[in-house]
Amino acid sequence: MIDENHIVSLLRRRFGGRGAELIRGIGDDAAVLRPRGSREYWVVTTDMLLEDVDFRRSWLTPAQLGHKALAVNLSDLAAMGARPRFYTVALALPADLGEAWIEALYRGMSKLARRQGALLIGGDLSRSPFGVQVTITAIGTASKPMYRSGGRPGDILYVTGSLGKAAAGLALLRRGRVQGRCLSERRALKAQRTPDPRCEVGAWLAGSGFARCMMDLSDGISMDLPRLCEASGVGAEIFSEQLPMYPDSSGWQCDPVALALHGGEDFELLFAVPARKAERFEEAYPPGFPPLSRIGYLRRARGIVWAPRSGTAPQPLNAAGFDHFRI
Amino acid sequence: MIDENHIVSLLRRRFGGRGAELIRGIGDDAAVLRPRGSREYWVVTTDMLLEDVDFRRSWLTPAQLGHKALAVNLSDLAAMGARPRFYTVALALPADLGEAWIEALYRGMSKLARRQGALLIGGDLSRSPFGVQVTITAIGTASKPMYRSGGRPGDILYVTGSLGKAAAGLALLRRGRVQGRCLSERRALKAQRTPDPRCEVGAWLAGSGFARCMMDLSDGISMDLPRLCEASGVGAEIFSEQLPMYPDSSGWQCDPVALALHGGEDFELLFAVPARKAERFEEAYPPGFPPLSRIGYLRRARGIVWAPRSGTAPQPLNAAGFDHFRI
Repeated sequence: MIDENHIVSLLRRRFGGRGAELIRGIGDDAAVLRPRGSREYWVVTTDMLLEDVDFRRSWLTPAQLGHKALAVNLSDLAAMGARPRFYTVALALPADLGEAWIEALYRGMSKLARRQGALLIGGDLSRSPFGVQVTITAIGTASKPMYRSGGRPGDILYVTGSLGKAAAGLALLRRGRVQGRCLSERRALKAQRTPDPRCEVGAWLAGSGFARCMMDLSDGISMDLPRLCEASGVGAEIFSEQLPMYPDSSGWQCDPVALALHGGEDFELLFAVPARKAERFEEAYPPGFPPLSRIGYLRRARGIVWAPRSGTAPQPLNAAGFDHFRI
Repeated sequence: MIDENHIVSLLRRRFGGRGAELIRGIGDDAAVLRPRGSREYWVVTTDMLLEDVDFRRSWLTPAQLGHKALAVNLSDLAAMGARPRFYTVALALPADLGEAWIEALYRGMSKLARRQGALLIGGDLSRSPFGVQVTITAIGTASKPMYRSGGRPGDILYVTGSLGKAAAGLALLRRGRVQGRCLSERRALKAQRTPDPRCEVGAWLAGSGFARCMMDLSDGISMDLPRLCEASGVGAEIFSEQLPMYPDSSGWQCDPVALALHGGEDFELLFAVPARKAERFEEAYPPGFPPLSRIGYLRRARGIVWAPRSGTAPQPLNAAGFDHFRI
């Protein structure tokens, strides 16, 4: 059994590069480079989606798959406060998929890309003897990149949007419910299949100077928050009653609290703001942006704790998120 | 049946981006960007290696696979005249491969990267329900990038090194000969498993001002030369007796001429120099560099022709190289 965190830290220690133009390498949501003479930082990230690991072909249309494959990458750029600029696509395809399928995939990708300002610049194509594999590298620019590190004890933890909605959509798909029967189901399916990367919010947060550290939620709070805390050298307490859950999912026998804590693929932003700036920050946060929730705070004591019900004593929150090595 | 050239041209037409900082997008060996304020161009390429499409696991060690996966990307940078700077790695792994295997893969990659000046900056890791998949994105810098376009009728065509050696190595592996029994076999196996990307030569050529267009030979002359010609709007004639074949491969029942024309994965550079500069170019070409061969010239008439034996009339050269969609 291999642990992704362990391998990443091994790779960083043994093979991570150091150089004048490399500001941040392995271990954050994306790498940060500074081209010689440039006033901007360049931010680079790579993420792949594999059939039967990250999705089933019967669960989404090729256009939805294209959207999602790009969205997971753009979300990493959002987490760094970068604006999407360019992307490449490496696509491996089984022999039964032809030109129309490929076009639909790129159409879905392209629609999201245009909205977010990213240009397709190249890639690779190959037959696959197995399933579909889409690997994207996205490049963005940032004038002031955000990192997972930099958070301090006392900072308030925020998330954008709601948590557990994408996982609720996954639960529907696993039961074969590809079409939603009501608005709640359709929203959950949409969050799962065509997530909206928070690039505009990320860039605003980086520019505003309020946030001290940031990341995106791809594997669930219980797996991702420890990574933010580790990078910042702190611990955290979560207020369970303030988690922006997706309560509708109880309609299809999901536990909204468990999904909010452990469900992956929300692609919301998690960030920390110094307590003394919290009020001003909340006032400055633009009204058109996704809702904001204070979900806890950073503290000196390591580890993540939460109180399952208000009034109960905080207890350790165990990681049970989505590890791509544990499927 | 899908044709890679056709899909690439479809993607360029329908989804290819245009923007101020995007100098060259889909359709060349790599994309060329110009970061705002930067004196250098940034060159970006993506290439993947899939188990049972591009390699068999029994054919190479993980370190050799790591070397090759990076080499095919650095070769694309070489083709643009760019010096390697950074790379990301997306790695999908079957459950039977653990930490030691992963480390060996990165060790092989890292050894080549250090020699070529490239830094590992990030990536993605995933379990694979099928085979090993390695997708790399490499970023380089160039002060004067080279393209496939720009060649003119009358230009002399050159290649570096020898042609058909990697394909001769592949022929050995296909017969189960994983260890070479003599120097010729070992050289062919080395060319197949751990090719040497021609980055230094590519950067020198771009800087020297002699070459007008350039690409790397990944799919064999008979498939790659038409791409160079198409981009430059010309045709070409090949001098068969001047092809730098690997004659030793006849020792294991290969046809050195066929492999030189149609064998893929040589990762040598193919480029064109104006005829009036050819002599000066050959004098200026550094002695420590791989051997240089004049293999033909560009001409106005479209299509590629060659004379199988000297004295015979030139005939059309049909593409029979390695198309990743035709395995």
